[in-house]
Amino acid sequence: MPRLKFTLAYDGTAFHGWQIQEGKACRTVQGCLEDALERLCGQAVRVHGAGRTDAGVHAEGQVAHADIPPERAARPWLSALNALLPDDVSVLRVEEAADDFHSRFMAREKIYAYHLWLSRTAIFPTRRAYVWMTGRLDLTAMSLASCQLTGCRDFASFQNAGTEVASTVRTISEISWRYVEGQGFGGQALEVVWLFRADGFLKQMVRNLIGCLVEVGRNKLQPTDIPAILAARDRSVAPATAPARGLVLKEILY
Amino acid sequence: MPRLKFTLAYDGTAFHGWQIQEGKACRTVQGCLEDALERLCGQAVRVHGAGRTDAGVHAEGQVAHADIPPERAARPWLSALNALLPDDVSVLRVEEAADDFHSRFMAREKIYAYHLWLSRTAIFPTRRAYVWMTGRLDLTAMSLASCQLTGCRDFASFQNAGTEVASTVRTISEISWRYVEGQGFGGQALEVVWLFRADGFLKQMVRNLIGCLVEVGRNKLQPTDIPAILAARDRSVAPATAPARGLVLKEILY
Repeated sequence: MPRLKFTLAYDGTAFHGWQIQEGKACRTVQGCLEDALERLCGQAVRVHGAGRTDAGVHAEGQVAHADIPPERAARPWLSALNALLPDDVSVLRVEEAADDFHSRFMAREKIYAYHLWLSRTAIFPTRRAYVWMTGRLDLTAMSLASCQLTGCRDFASFQNAGTEVASTVRTISEISWRYVEGQGFGGQALEVVWLFRADGFLKQMVRNLIGCLVEVGRNKLQPTDIPAILAARDRSVAPATAPARGLVLKEILY
Repeated sequence: MPRLKFTLAYDGTAFHGWQIQEGKACRTVQGCLEDALERLCGQAVRVHGAGRTDAGVHAEGQVAHADIPPERAARPWLSALNALLPDDVSVLRVEEAADDFHSRFMAREKIYAYHLWLSRTAIFPTRRAYVWMTGRLDLTAMSLASCQLTGCRDFASFQNAGTEVASTVRTISEISWRYVEGQGFGGQALEVVWLFRADGFLKQMVRNLIGCLVEVGRNKLQPTDIPAILAARDRSVAPATAPARGLVLKEILY
């Protein structure tokens, strides 16, 4: 059966995450995509996603694949799927993939963005569902701390429970930040976006990393505290998980 | 009575514009702000806005002023107002203003942004309420056309009916565009933002200007057609008004 590769964007606000939860009547992105494919193919189609984004997490470059009945393969997939999908999911691209392509197992690197809002009182309401309102932060201290998190390390202290993995070692190739251009009023920049790029992420790892960096930005932790947190390999020594709404799955590289 | 100057941001999606419409039970931003001020002041407070944004238009820097009963003037206004306002309006700043400050009459320049999405089929759902999905555009031709619109000109052809003005001459000091940074997937930029800066704008003038520029971007008009459209001083010769949702009032300069 022909295998298709889908690149997807969604607003995670009204979803219980990417993955169908068997036996539960939750609204999931995977469920919406499978429903649309079933209507177009006349039979159930299983979709495999590259990453299981949590409830409330957004995506601009989620990737999934599915095998399509050969007699249905020739279709204007992009417009047909977008006509059937709800307003909070959109297919950005549909490509024919090799028979052995696998969206999850063949992913080489993933890029996530996390958006912080540097005020606790004033907000652009159009950004409310997409940022964590932290208030003012010491971004220099956060940059120093982020250097301690980059590279090949054991991230057990930044992994939440619930998913079995063979190893908690991952390689983060980039943690960087920039002000969001065109934001801010009267010269005051209000939104910063942090990029995280790695060969893979543990469960809620980005939200745990940014939760830790924000504690540094609030001067409740020092950049020099990071090595001991990593060495502990204990989730309870690291700060709390950041809210889902600030997180965006940006891109998956193969 | 002490006069306060408010800087406001709002998501225009669920509002019938800025201005209270007498005799109609519409939800307006001015109405929400007056309700919050009445609760804090114990009496009706009239709010005067710098510009009457239309239904569906957003703001990141709307300015308004109001006179506050002296016995109520000392308050933590920012947090008090934001606690009372609905989620789609936020006060960004509250300042004491001179007794003769007027948000509308003293405005020197206004800056609007208009967001275009360069696909008709694929969208980031988080941007759906904030862009006009035009599809691919010839941005070079649009830049050339925008030069014909910059400067001190009679914009009668770009004014919608409904508001009496003494003159239809305005000075546009800047029309420029940039790709929205951090958008796009696989190297394909999807969102562009156009900035319009002028000493004032006629009714729906920005939406009429961008409507015209998009026709140029679709090669249905040439940049060289602009002078004749301006010279006609006739709304019916210029292209249709662009949708409200792509427009943001960015800043008002005094």
